[in-house]
Amino acid sequence: MPRWEPDARGRLERAALELTRERAFDEISVSDITARAGLKERTFYRYFADKREVFFAGQDELAEIFRTTIAGAPAGAAPLELVTAALIAAEPVLRERREFGRERNQLLAEHRGLAERELSKLAILADTMAAALRRCGVAEPTATLAADAGITVFKVAYERWIDDDNHRDLPVLVRDVAEAFGTIVCETPAASTH
Amino acid sequence: MPRWEPDARGRLERAALELTRERAFDEISVSDITARAGLKERTFYRYFADKREVFFAGQDELAEIFRTTIAGAPAGAAPLELVTAALIAAEPVLRERREFGRERNQLLAEHRGLAERELSKLAILADTMAAALRRCGVAEPTATLAADAGITVFKVAYERWIDDDNHRDLPVLVRDVAEAFGTIVCETPAASTH
Repeated sequence: MPRWEPDARGRLERAALELTRERAFDEISVSDITARAGLKERTFYRYFADKREVFFAGQDELAEIFRTTIAGAPAGAAPLELVTAALIAAEPVLRERREFGRERNQLLAEHRGLAERELSKLAILADTMAAALRRCGVAEPTATLAADAGITVFKVAYERWIDDDNHRDLPVLVRDVAEAFGTIVCETPAASTH
Repeated sequence: MPRWEPDARGRLERAALELTRERAFDEISVSDITARAGLKERTFYRYFADKREVFFAGQDELAEIFRTTIAGAPAGAAPLELVTAALIAAEPVLRERREFGRERNQLLAEHRGLAERELSKLAILADTMAAALRRCGVAEPTATLAADAGITVFKVAYERWIDDDNHRDLPVLVRDVAEAFGTIVCETPAASTH
């Protein structure tokens, strides 16, 4: 029987990120990660299906926050408001991991395989939100459109937030970006010509 | 010097899809695909960077249609209208490949690696649209929000369209789904309780 390892998931995640400062992700093996974390290789596979998954450890927690926030919202709120509230509810978890998130985002920008995995994780989060919206009585395609819109808002707001020069809080950024959704149906200004 | 092969890309694409009817994608090699297509293996790598890419041969053509449609639109159109027009402009290309598209979509649903690649291709198309919108004078985050909204509309409308029982034209479906965007800011009906 495997022993229970306190915070094994977090230790593996941190060890993996630490190793990516030393060499390319493709040159790091699962056994390198477990060795750095002081754990056994089979412990890794108890938590993660493959090497890439180590950078998506927070996914389930986010999904749970999105689900419960949408389910618990007062009746009558607009779908875009519901997904905005869900994103804002995730702020404490994200704030706690802001430094990690910044470094992780850089890594994703440099590694196609990780970037693809990130997109598939965001698609799962969108599906989670769409399902929660349908349970609140939101019909299709509105539920899917609102959930995807929520994920776009999340991506844009999150990138602005982890930017070093940006000192605004994530909820403020989320609200600003979500409000800009109204502008996609407004007239386009004439492009400046040179 | 490699000889020019007429429609080599199309032959490779069709050969690959044909092989997936016989066995799993992971059990098909690039040399299996080229053999089936009656071409040499190095011809494959002139067109595609890796095995998965064979199912994304139409990507550049779509990007070009999106780019030119947005650039050529009359001034003053709303960003969501611009991306909707771009999707509708792609209809002839998509109609020509409807049967292929249906089979391909089934394959993507069954293969995680291909589904991830599809998401990254859709993200590139969204970036293409956002860049075209910015060149028309659309500011950020509106350009990104409208482009992502366009891709969501595309996904939902395309899935409805390739559905066997659906006899509506793609442009009609695109317009219907795009119009539903207005509903994401409307009040949610109370969920029925059981």
